[in-house]
Amino acid sequence: MKERKIGVGLMGLGVVGGGVARVLTDRAGLLTERVGLPLVLRKVKVIEPDLARPLAQEMDSSLFTTDADEFFATPGMDIVVEAIGGEEPALRYLKRALSAGKYVVTSNKEVIAKHGAELLDLARQRGVGVYFEASVGGGIPLIAPFQHSLVANRIAGIYAIINGTTNYILTRMARDGVDFTSALKKAQELGYAEANPENDVEGIDATYKLAILASLAFQTQVHPGDVYREGISRLSNRDFRYARELGYAIKLLAIAKEENKEVEVRVHPVFIAEDSLLAKVDGVYNAVLVEGDLVGKVLFFGEGAGALPTSSAVAADVVAAARDIALGVSSGAGFSLEPGKVIKPMAEIESRYYLRLNVADRPGVLAQVSRVLGDRLISISSVIQQLADEVAQTAEIVIMTHPAGEAAMQSALGELAELPVIKEISSFIRVEA
Amino acid sequence: MKERKIGVGLMGLGVVGGGVARVLTDRAGLLTERVGLPLVLRKVKVIEPDLARPLAQEMDSSLFTTDADEFFATPGMDIVVEAIGGEEPALRYLKRALSAGKYVVTSNKEVIAKHGAELLDLARQRGVGVYFEASVGGGIPLIAPFQHSLVANRIAGIYAIINGTTNYILTRMARDGVDFTSALKKAQELGYAEANPENDVEGIDATYKLAILASLAFQTQVHPGDVYREGISRLSNRDFRYARELGYAIKLLAIAKEENKEVEVRVHPVFIAEDSLLAKVDGVYNAVLVEGDLVGKVLFFGEGAGALPTSSAVAADVVAAARDIALGVSSGAGFSLEPGKVIKPMAEIESRYYLRLNVADRPGVLAQVSRVLGDRLISISSVIQQLADEVAQTAEIVIMTHPAGEAAMQSALGELAELPVIKEISSFIRVEA
Repeated sequence: MKERKIGVGLMGLGVVGGGVARVLTDRAGLLTERVGLPLVLRKVKVIEPDLARPLAQEMDSSLFTTDADEFFATPGMDIVVEAIGGEEPALRYLKRALSAGKYVVTSNKEVIAKHGAELLDLARQRGVGVYFEASVGGGIPLIAPFQHSLVANRIAGIYAIINGTTNYILTRMARDGVDFTSALKKAQELGYAEANPENDVEGIDATYKLAILASLAFQTQVHPGDVYREGISRLSNRDFRYARELGYAIKLLAIAKEENKEVEVRVHPVFIAEDSLLAKVDGVYNAVLVEGDLVGKVLFFGEGAGALPTSSAVAADVVAAARDIALGVSSGAGFSLEPGKVIKPMAEIESRYYLRLNVADRPGVLAQVSRVLGDRLISISSVIQQLADEVAQTAEIVIMTHPAGEAAMQSALGELAELPVIKEISSFIRVEA
Repeated sequence: MKERKIGVGLMGLGVVGGGVARVLTDRAGLLTERVGLPLVLRKVKVIEPDLARPLAQEMDSSLFTTDADEFFATPGMDIVVEAIGGEEPALRYLKRALSAGKYVVTSNKEVIAKHGAELLDLARQRGVGVYFEASVGGGIPLIAPFQHSLVANRIAGIYAIINGTTNYILTRMARDGVDFTSALKKAQELGYAEANPENDVEGIDATYKLAILASLAFQTQVHPGDVYREGISRLSNRDFRYARELGYAIKLLAIAKEENKEVEVRVHPVFIAEDSLLAKVDGVYNAVLVEGDLVGKVLFFGEGAGALPTSSAVAADVVAAARDIALGVSSGAGFSLEPGKVIKPMAEIESRYYLRLNVADRPGVLAQVSRVLGDRLISISSVIQQLADEVAQTAEIVIMTHPAGEAAMQSALGELAELPVIKEISSFIRVEA
């Protein structure tokens, strides 16, 4: 009798796809042992430029095709690994694979964040599975814990550093005192930031990942568009200096909380206590802190991107899919939807705030500022006032507030901006406990 | 048609068992939703004293039995949760459950460390599964990552703080400058240490957990007896003071490494760089750092014990077992054994060392000490020498070495102990990079 084999098709041979191709070929023996059946790479869908890569030169050329129809017609292909990235054509290919009854593994955060529920539905209909551990946090186990290890918990909150590029930039700004532009340039030189860095530095990438984690944690559909978002490009050196002085680090945090079926999801810079574990997560590392009602606080830390860490997660998912195929079961877990959950409007959140104002250096200014806050019951926990520019006769006022409502705070900012004595609202950053 | 239900039997109603009973009853709805079939608690095996507990008073008394035969005769019991702890009768009950074709979930680190391979074999023969996420690190996902998320990796090393009691004691010694005895007393008052603390403070508990993690990580059978072990009871205040001065924290670390099929497993106090993440893990928290060849460094952090965190892991395992039962599959993962791996003798390990000596305060002593080390090619990276006791005319010498072999170091310690100018080898602690 011919031994059963599990056939794998790979779409994409870029950074992630190349890493996956290497792992599937270099350690076929190890993976076969973990599955219990041989895993065989059957076909790789590439685009023309991929064929010039050194890796493509090393591999058997009959594995490659640039034609999607040919790829999908490959016999004995049980699993399709999508490592193309971006919304299209990845989404189309994933649907095609599922419709053809193939199990799919993907590292595509954008597609899962935007269309995860639809893909999981399609998989259920076809009796197959969708595996997406690599879509968030590279090789750090993050999807599996929510699908398995933490299932008995009601999740209260997620606090995550899930974009390595911005964390690298913030780390350099904090350590070297350089400004955003220089830190970004350094990140680009090192290959940590792309030529067009918007997706990372404006927090878009983080909203995809947060939408996925929040959907799993709260068993509801959180769309990336539901996530309030601010990037890091407007942070100044001065904020880092004040943060240090006040005992904080500045991080781009992805936050998701649930209370009374209201789900709060936001990505923005925060002041975070410098002795907290998240404050110590430096450079391109990622960390996700989860608060569950049984488990308490658990934290997952590691490299959140890169060819090897991501291929670790993809290969684990390929093994999981292959085991499920061998057992003849579809993947049991997914987004199951609890009814009645709503997204909390940003105006209704509560936070503490850090506020830096450039003001006219004359008596009574602080009193005016205090009145604007006090009128809205926003109470001040500390103030620093110091001369900013002797010639221009301006001073800088830095205020930390006690917890206050976002709507009240935005209204206060509106009135402050109108005050003649205020030259500029230089910074406005939320503070996490 | 009658809807299928998954029946659960629970053995033990102590701290862990009580927590599990609460979770299974209080959130039956949530668990049922996660499984897709109703989970029903059928029977609880207790010992007489358990029946007096408030929890037992709240529960339906017909659930209880003190008789193991009656427990095992309960109809419709698909899963047995063992929360008794200790080697016997837990092992006997687990074998009995498996032999009767029941899936078992256990939080019993001692049984899994000593008899895990045997139990997994028995489960395989009967087509059922053994689930033991709760045996290490409370609710922190640690077993699942090795069985699933990290399977494509070759694991190079594990560095773990996996005993909350000792970490609490070391944290107090470091922060408050108190000695071991006072810190232990405080831990006992707070319920973090038992009346007889030996199992924790001598590192025995940590060897069980490390044996389990190393067996999974390296796919070989590591017995607790294979683990080199030193506890924390001989650490002195002075060591903490020098550690701080030299830029280190002191932690009880469980270390497992593999190189060339040689597995190194040890539990002992270490000096660890104070800016490392593990150095920041304080109080009763646990953390496990794993180094994989693809994933790089990943760290898992959380509460490593307690009724709620442990019941989070047990309940997740019950859900996993129930899903497997519903799908009609046995648990796919376990210890699979790679041939040819051996335990590296402690004498062959390499480390850096911290050495504190009480010596006669007279010229030439340091030269003698240096000669003993130099003769064995152990090179010194830093030395502190200071007066210890003017009346007794003794000095203290603190030496940090470069990496050296353990055998050479032990031989040096032997010769140093014989030198007339050396009053005492006060401390000898390994240093982790």
